[in-house]
Amino acid sequence: MEKVNLSEKLHQLSDLWSPRIVGELNGQHVKLVKIKGEFIWHHHDAEDELFLVIHGRFDMHLRDRVVTIRDGEFFIVPRGVEHKPVAENETHILLFEPVGTLNTGNVRNERTRESPERL
Amino acid sequence: MEKVNLSEKLHQLSDLWSPRIVGELNGQHVKLVKIKGEFIWHHHDAEDELFLVIHGRFDMHLRDRVVTIRDGEFFIVPRGVEHKPVAENETHILLFEPVGTLNTGNVRNERTRESPERL
Repeated sequence: MEKVNLSEKLHQLSDLWSPRIVGELNGQHVKLVKIKGEFIWHHHDAEDELFLVIHGRFDMHLRDRVVTIRDGEFFIVPRGVEHKPVAENETHILLFEPVGTLNTGNVRNERTRESPERL
Repeated sequence: MEKVNLSEKLHQLSDLWSPRIVGELNGQHVKLVKIKGEFIWHHHDAEDELFLVIHGRFDMHLRDRVVTIRDGEFFIVPRGVEHKPVAENETHILLFEPVGTLNTGNVRNERTRESPERL
């Protein structure tokens, strides 16, 4: 039961596209992730996913539109909805999602991080 | 499925100690609340509660210590743990907690907000 400083945690995180766990409550994980470049199209069958931008901005590609999310903004991708995050510059994001949510959702490939570690 | 800008939402929120819903996912609510002054001691029987400071700072009083939480920091109060938020100056907080979580937990009094509205 310690407070978490987002800047300090982000400072310890160097890998891109590799979510790390910084909190857990009610069966949900709080994660931090740094992204830059283009991810893959995927969806989550049973998990809604919240993206809160802490630093930077990125485009959330959906099949019918693109939503730009800047620092101080969040976006919820409901379960079943295909999405692909793309960041021109390095962007830092806080994620809220159920414990066990896989970063690549229904896809398993070289971008998959099977068991995110605590940061 | 629209993005949420925290500053814009906070601008629309004038009441103190009155959490408002700004998002929902996986049976959890994302809420915003403005606080100033002292709240009441309470706990939540079945809900863990996350407090992320967006602006300002506040003291989370626990029975055995006080934790100061500043902007860019979050703190999780596990279910069953008595707590009392106190803010010397107006502070803006994002809450993440299960749908139905009552702001005063096990206590019902004039500080209770039975059904938080969407903002």
